Amino acid sequence: MKFEVLKSDGNARYGVIETTRSRIETPVFMPVGTLATIKGLDTVDLKEHLKPEIILANTYHLYLRPNHKIVEKMGGLHGFTNFEKSFLTDSGGFQAFSLKESKTSDSGIEFKSHIDGSKHYFTPEKVIDIQNSLGSDIMMVLDDLIALPAEKRRISDSIERTTRWAKESLKYHLETRKDEVQNLFAIVQGGVDLDFRKKSATELTEIEISGKSFDGFAIGGLSVGEPNQAMYDTVEFTAPLLPVEKPRYLMGVGTPEDLIENIYRGIDMFDCVMPTRNARNGTLFTSFGRLSIKASRFKEGSNPVDPSCNCYTCQNYSRAYLNHLFRAKEITYIRLASLHNLHYYLNLMREVREAIQKGQFEEYRKEFYSKRVF
Amino acid sequence: MKFEVLKSDGNARYGVIETTRSRIETPVFMPVGTLATIKGLDTVDLKEHLKPEIILANTYHLYLRPNHKIVEKMGGLHGFTNFEKSFLTDSGGFQAFSLKESKTSDSGIEFKSHIDGSKHYFTPEKVIDIQNSLGSDIMMVLDDLIALPAEKRRISDSIERTTRWAKESLKYHLETRKDEVQNLFAIVQGGVDLDFRKKSATELTEIEISGKSFDGFAIGGLSVGEPNQAMYDTVEFTAPLLPVEKPRYLMGVGTPEDLIENIYRGIDMFDCVMPTRNARNGTLFTSFGRLSIKASRFKEGSNPVDPSCNCYTCQNYSRAYLNHLFRAKEITYIRLASLHNLHYYLNLMREVREAIQKGQFEEYRKEFYSKRVF
Repeated sequence: MKFEVLKSDGNARYGVIETTRSRIETPVFMPVGTLATIKGLDTVDLKEHLKPEIILANTYHLYLRPNHKIVEKMGGLHGFTNFEKSFLTDSGGFQAFSLKESKTSDSGIEFKSHIDGSKHYFTPEKVIDIQNSLGSDIMMVLDDLIALPAEKRRISDSIERTTRWAKESLKYHLETRKDEVQNLFAIVQGGVDLDFRKKSATELTEIEISGKSFDGFAIGGLSVGEPNQAMYDTVEFTAPLLPVEKPRYLMGVGTPEDLIENIYRGIDMFDCVMPTRNARNGTLFTSFGRLSIKASRFKEGSNPVDPSCNCYTCQNYSRAYLNHLFRAKEITYIRLASLHNLHYYLNLMREVREAIQKGQFEEYRKEFYSKRVF
Repeated sequence: MKFEVLKSDGNARYGVIETTRSRIETPVFMPVGTLATIKGLDTVDLKEHLKPEIILANTYHLYLRPNHKIVEKMGGLHGFTNFEKSFLTDSGGFQAFSLKESKTSDSGIEFKSHIDGSKHYFTPEKVIDIQNSLGSDIMMVLDDLIALPAEKRRISDSIERTTRWAKESLKYHLETRKDEVQNLFAIVQGGVDLDFRKKSATELTEIEISGKSFDGFAIGGLSVGEPNQAMYDTVEFTAPLLPVEKPRYLMGVGTPEDLIENIYRGIDMFDCVMPTRNARNGTLFTSFGRLSIKASRFKEGSNPVDPSCNCYTCQNYSRAYLNHLFRAKEITYIRLASLHNLHYYLNLMREVREAIQKGQFEEYRKEFYSKRVF
């Protein structure tokens, strides 16, 4: 994997990640395909309409169903889904953290399947094995995530473990990888405590085995309920601690405003279920703010969701038709709304990249807020 | 509307219906878009992948939600859905019949909304008004459907009412139609009693007002639980009683076998929710019979659903991927499965039309059965 920052504008960066399968311009938003499909869409929708260069899939979910070994037999995620661009897979650390009965020890995380209650155990090596089977282009190390607010002691333990696991992961990755296709990112932890963030970032960026270090660095453990400003402050402090020449990925973030604010603070990569989840709940993103498609005022009228939008949905359907489909619980609505929201996110990133390239990100950011009427 | 039978092969007919919007080759299967969408698909799926010349929408459902007046303001069903080919709308008679608390009197049907329990009343004129608002290309008269088996007295009443309502409908249609775009079909009733079928067919085909008669004739009240052979026998008896020069439509039918058997007996038009409903339940139609995609044996393997099928789904995805999407309850599955099943039905009709044109329908029918292994 290659990464190059081609232009900086304040802390915002325009760059390019090259994997064997994709040329990914950054800042990039990665649509989430938890179970090897973006909810409501199919692979042809990606290829023909949204054209993302990279999407995300979840290790925990695919390990349980259909199981990574089946995916491997089908040619990995690319063969299984017929999506030939890049996949990033998470490590399952976040899901394990989210499950009520999970237990974290120094060697790994024990958890129960949310499907059948069966017991499973994730170690740094195990999640690399799974991601090897999945054949993802970017893999994430197992990390020890904590809920916020947290005691200092718990944060400290989390960082220590995260560093040790990262080291074990890189070692195992270098031993087991078959080719140069797969890449590995480490994840900085530390909650919203800046001292701990510094410790975690320093330790992870110093790891080097046989001259090899991580291909990129993520900031994890945010967007878990802390105030927005605390997230922004943590990112503002942490991003400069990461190597300039590696991509910086803010995991699980966020709203369009979160993307703008964190790009402003030096982030290159994002993922979030928000565009698809909000679509399903009836909230559509537009250049003028959020719109609740189920509202009575949208029962009539032939305008598309966003008259300035050139997505599949806005090119073909009216708000009134979407309002009807939503109210009638027709699942056709979900695909159309998800296509629109993901188009909004991907297009926002396109505009941001252009603004950075022109050295006009600050103006773009102001305009972004000034256009929002609700 | 024009209809011409271009070729007969036994009782099977190849013909063409021309509406102002479509050139519909018959025998034709009409996909069902109850609420102004084929469940799981959108209009672009129809235009680009399935290419039907006519689809069906349900008057009862659209009257309740979003309401025909809203559809009318949006330019009728064509403007509302962005589907520019033909729509056939039913009269709501079947839904009224299906609702538990509906009451039929000589002047119409009183029923309660399945959504909010509100009371409504359908008369022959009212359902024409609604269908005028919907702007359908082919409208159906209100009929009095009965459950089978039924008492002679009840069947007799049903036929009497159906004839009277048909007369009132044609009269009202000729008074209220604005142009030549909309057409009206009558519906033959009579259960599986051949004497009553004869009475109903005779009465309806004799109706003429100012030199105008119905544009086509449907056989209704079948596929409501009677044995298959009873349906076939009733159609075999009834079809020849209908005018040769008008299209014959068997409502709500059926399985692929039902289509073949009833084309063999002289039917030109069909509609049924089976391809889309079965898709949702995991049953996929193939040239070699039905396939349950959720079966464990489809967890692996890169074959498409039907290797000889050139539908969107079979061109892009494996059985294993569909098996996974079904088991994981991903709604993406529904669209892919519905596209496949509808393609199967529309392609079956294409093959049947070719066979009739070549005078080889009997051979085609034999081959159809011989290829089915389950």
